[in-house]
Amino acid sequence: MKKNEISVLGAGLIGSLLSIYLRKRGLDVNLYEKRADNRKGEYSEEGRSINMALSDRGWRALEKAGLKEKVLPLTIPMYGRKIHDEHGKTTFIPYGNEDQAIYSISRGKFNQLLVDEAESLGVKLNFEHKCEEVDLRYNHLTFSTPDGITEKLESNVIIGSDGAYSSLRNAMLKQVRFNYRQEYISHGYKELTIPATAEGEFAMDPNALHIWPRGSFMLIALPNPDKSFTCTLFLPFDGERVCFEIIQDKKDVESIFKTYFDDAFEMMPNLTEQFFKNPTASLINLECYPWMLNRALLIGDASHAMVPFYGQGMNSGFEDVLILDELIGKLGTNAWELVFAKFQKIRKPDTDAICRLAMENFEEMRDQVADPKFLIRKRIEAKLHALYPKDWIPLYTMVTFSSMPYSEAYSQGKLQDMVMNRVMADPLITQNWNKLDYEDIINQMDKAKAV
Amino acid sequence: MKKNEISVLGAGLIGSLLSIYLRKRGLDVNLYEKRADNRKGEYSEEGRSINMALSDRGWRALEKAGLKEKVLPLTIPMYGRKIHDEHGKTTFIPYGNEDQAIYSISRGKFNQLLVDEAESLGVKLNFEHKCEEVDLRYNHLTFSTPDGITEKLESNVIIGSDGAYSSLRNAMLKQVRFNYRQEYISHGYKELTIPATAEGEFAMDPNALHIWPRGSFMLIALPNPDKSFTCTLFLPFDGERVCFEIIQDKKDVESIFKTYFDDAFEMMPNLTEQFFKNPTASLINLECYPWMLNRALLIGDASHAMVPFYGQGMNSGFEDVLILDELIGKLGTNAWELVFAKFQKIRKPDTDAICRLAMENFEEMRDQVADPKFLIRKRIEAKLHALYPKDWIPLYTMVTFSSMPYSEAYSQGKLQDMVMNRVMADPLITQNWNKLDYEDIINQMDKAKAV
Repeated sequence: MKKNEISVLGAGLIGSLLSIYLRKRGLDVNLYEKRADNRKGEYSEEGRSINMALSDRGWRALEKAGLKEKVLPLTIPMYGRKIHDEHGKTTFIPYGNEDQAIYSISRGKFNQLLVDEAESLGVKLNFEHKCEEVDLRYNHLTFSTPDGITEKLESNVIIGSDGAYSSLRNAMLKQVRFNYRQEYISHGYKELTIPATAEGEFAMDPNALHIWPRGSFMLIALPNPDKSFTCTLFLPFDGERVCFEIIQDKKDVESIFKTYFDDAFEMMPNLTEQFFKNPTASLINLECYPWMLNRALLIGDASHAMVPFYGQGMNSGFEDVLILDELIGKLGTNAWELVFAKFQKIRKPDTDAICRLAMENFEEMRDQVADPKFLIRKRIEAKLHALYPKDWIPLYTMVTFSSMPYSEAYSQGKLQDMVMNRVMADPLITQNWNKLDYEDIINQMDKAKAV
Repeated sequence: MKKNEISVLGAGLIGSLLSIYLRKRGLDVNLYEKRADNRKGEYSEEGRSINMALSDRGWRALEKAGLKEKVLPLTIPMYGRKIHDEHGKTTFIPYGNEDQAIYSISRGKFNQLLVDEAESLGVKLNFEHKCEEVDLRYNHLTFSTPDGITEKLESNVIIGSDGAYSSLRNAMLKQVRFNYRQEYISHGYKELTIPATAEGEFAMDPNALHIWPRGSFMLIALPNPDKSFTCTLFLPFDGERVCFEIIQDKKDVESIFKTYFDDAFEMMPNLTEQFFKNPTASLINLECYPWMLNRALLIGDASHAMVPFYGQGMNSGFEDVLILDELIGKLGTNAWELVFAKFQKIRKPDTDAICRLAMENFEEMRDQVADPKFLIRKRIEAKLHALYPKDWIPLYTMVTFSSMPYSEAYSQGKLQDMVMNRVMADPLITQNWNKLDYEDIINQMDKAKAV
């Protein structure tokens, strides 16, 4: 039987970057992917790709692998949210300081770049290899290929970066004492496009993430280098109000878009066609534990798939890779079980925290951002941060523009929320926000921490 | 391809009783079981059977199927808990009124009785049929048998009563938007036996469920008709204190039993042998939703496996059967999707409630029952129930001796808990409990309900 040193399952963003890191440690890496090599010919995302937003954690992992400069040209910085109301009026809410941005990037091209990089470093690529079985007792892997060949091999180490529907996790699920939870939210999503204008320009400001928040549903748009925007419509699958179930024909689509997203509608010439061609996809939150069994490990979405509302799915997966690599650096490449055990123990509280935050942020995006008080709240927090940069860091900043562990950001954020709820309870806050006693707010925060 | 009208997966307690009910509705029922027919030759429970405790919900389902009289001789009534302290001193805490009991029964013989009954009614039995695949698009089932034969068939209706590791549920798990959660608790269990005495008598009072509560762990014992007791030891798998991991040899076993369960130890001549022969099994809580897809339905443990600490796993499964049968009675045998949709909607909140209660009762059994105040609390509640039989029903009574929906019992129980916590906060309660103003407690309960 063929023997691999390391087999990585899934050549998506996380699996490719992980392979690069492992190869740089001098290891012999085989990367397996059930899909065909998308670098040959047209890349199809099948209308299911929410654009990625690279932020600090992701950049850090790319930088350490020497890839920052190569990735940068594929990205467009977004410095804040641009909120569109029903009348097309927009309000800009910065994400952080003037120089802080998250970076829109298309999954397809980014993935190609990482696979190219892995290949050039000597990672062995195995496309069209579907993992049919993992035998965890012996670390045996069985793959099938489109021409009907079955390949069975043994691997010293297996790492499953094979996403929310992971084969490795399925094998672990059948082991005793594997805790597992998958939960679909009530909303689905559909990808749509705003093309470049007739003049070949962006139809809107490209340096923002556009949001049309409508209470129980929303539309968002992220810019692409070809001057189009990738839009994602989030609606409940079913229910009494606006939902996917009630949209049956062209008239329904147009009526809903004219009512709720009129300015976007004007920029979407192929709306109906796209709406019925693109699938309605579902959104899952998934947590499990343990992440390892002997010399097999789950990483990225395979161990913690989250809803996309904090833009941290890919970033947290890249951070997984960084942390795993640091442990390999410390403990060497002959202590895999120890490395994996330490990895899951360190990392699990943080991925739990970001899963929860992603769920909670959905409400903020589709509902609260439309509230004028939300804008004031953000301004107060920005001012607190400017005055007391170490004592008050807005939650979004901790998550997006720092490497503070997610679990610390989460608990710090909850305390700040409590204090801010008290501040915002003042009925005259709309007039008074600029005259607040900011030092007192910081003192309240210190008291809250001391409890 | 062979066509079945109804295929029931799993010939355990729930599957057998369900088949009886369906057959009585005039349906053509095929029952599939991966194990061999245990009625032929010695029945082996492989040292993993916690004795069952039949209570009102279970009895009701048996009675409606005309089986109560046949089952009764297999059972031994237990009228309360007998608590053993470290010195062998026992205290009896009744479960309810004098005539209220739960009934100890061995899984093996009970199962044989139900399978016999199903067979005599014309249910087609298919033992040694392992369900390899369920294709939910066409309701196709694929079975394998020990002689290597594969059988594929189509079934108008499939019901999965195939337990916590259900094949049908595994097929549903791969469907989109299936919410699923499995969680193992930190404790495992091991079966042990207290044999009949040399004189052929019960070694302890047979009409009680014996508990040796020791804080973070416990031993329990249920009587058998052959005058033995089936004991179950619940310990954490690992940790700092008493746990399975640290018990390595005869000396360890004896030392722990002499220290914590000395009176039981004296009654267990084969303790060490059993301890190392019997496996350490794990305990799972499992919830999912939906329970149906088209004309396939999950029932019993397949849809809601719970930890055994409320003695309601089998009883709730039998109640599932009763409720499903009532819906079939109302809506007929030509509206399966409607029946299944109503069933899951009605039943899910109740099985969620009993899963939670089972988890919460673990703490009560292993810890609180050893507290003298617990006994007083039970006495106060019993007196409240005697004085105001409709206004105050102890939670255990609602769950065990009534057919009130579990979810109502749960919320009523939480309110009573709140009121009782207040009552028990009196530092002199040990002296004063008999002189309480019981009417005032009922008034507090009314107020709590009104909120």
